Amino acid sequence: MAISARNTLSGTVKEIKRGMVTATVKVDIGGGNVITSSITLEAAEELGVAEGKPINVVIKASDVMLATD
Amino acid sequence: MAISARNTLSGTVKEIKRGMVTATVKVDIGGGNVITSSITLEAAEELGVAEGKPINVVIKASDVMLATD
Amino acid sequence: MAISARNTLSGTVKEIKRGMVTATVKVDIGGGNVITSSITLEAAEELGVAEGKPINVVIKASDVMLATD
Amino acid sequence: MAISARNTLSGTVKEIKRGMVTATVKVDIGGGNVITSSITLEAAEELGVAEGKPINVVIKASDVMLATD
Amino acid sequence: MAISARNTLSGTVKEIKRGMVTATVKVDIGGGNVITSSITLEAAEELGVAEGKPINVVIKASDVMLATD
Amino acid sequence: MAISARNTLSGTVKEIKRGMVTATVKVDIGGGNVITSSITLEAAEELGVAEGKPINVVIKASDVMLATD
Repeated sequence: MAISARNTLSGTVKEIKRGMVTATVKVDIGGGNVITSSITLEAAEELGVAEGKPINVVIKASDVMLATD
Repeated sequence: MAISARNTLSGTVKEIKRGMVTATVKVDIGGGNVITSSITLEAAEELGVAEGKPINVVIKASDVMLATD
Repeated sequence: MAISARNTLSGTVKEIKRGMVTATVKVDIGGGNVITSSITLEAAEELGVAEGKPINVVIKASDVMLATD
Repeated sequence: MAISARNTLSGTVKEIKRGMVTATVKVDIGGGNVITSSITLEAAEELGVAEGKPINVVIKASDVMLATD
Repeated sequence: MAISARNTLSGTVKEIKRGMVTATVKVDIGGGNVITSSITLEAAEELGVAEGKPINVVIKASDVMLATD
Repeated sequence: MAISARNTLSGTVKEIKRGMVTATVKVDIGGGNVITSSITLEAAEELGVAEGKPINVVIKASDVMLATD
């Protein structure tokens, strides 16, 4: 599937924390960068998200802000 | 400023394309990853976004989707 | 690719309007429903979005609001 | 109330799952399509969201991604 | 229409800038606060957005970040 | 830190409700306006969000919808 979201980065699941309805997942995308994702618990289970597994991070360009120090 | 968005990654501006109201900016965050951001033209000018300049990428955890191949 | 976004609906491109950096696309998803999407022009060209072509609409659950009349 | 979000689709509540702070609601919008929404529990209660009840789904155009198989 | 978005604030249109596909609107919501909104041009025209006119600002709770100085 | 999000409004924390993974925070921004934010619990703790404390509300222009009565 090709998607209009401009950012698809590959990585590895580093950690997953489960709430009642939401799960917070940390993904190591290399270069010293770890990205935190908050998805529904249903999605985490459906995708089989588990520590050590390969996963892609997908982000729309309009959801990426820029900031200067 | 500390912000509730869970993802703040440092990088360098690789490219900026300007529309009438929006600008599309590509940021090299290292590890072979380039992130595309779409912000208002007003913001790009205010932040002095220019090729080669250091910049931070800021993304809310709830805006980060996960996908498996 | 399986994605964490909870909504993937199939449809047909009904109309596409191009700006300098953004494109507005209307997708017929059946049942009398037409969904409007605003994506980057780069994405529209990369996906080959054109009137009459099949396309999937992808929406995160947290981006779907509810309202009563 | 007329709203700038480009997508307002009418449907019926099919299912609601309640967490401590968030609720996940599935809405049948016809044409074989069911849309999943994740809203605050406060909103679900205020709107009186309940199975079988009519409800509108509201989505901004910039939150609608497109994908090809 | 009652909506699940937790923030509906009333104000007055202070300024509108039109692009080819998008419009940037500044709304005075009182208390010294002016909020900037970026919507599709189609929506701005449909809502009759014009300087001096009353307008409501609608924002989802999950789109509101917090920051400390 | 200067950020591309067009809306940074200062206020005071009025209330905070904690879930397992998410926290809902109400911020008084003056002029009779209270804004509700939904952030991760991790962020609320890291920022030291507590009733009576000063806090900034940060919102992207593209996340601000407009509506007429």
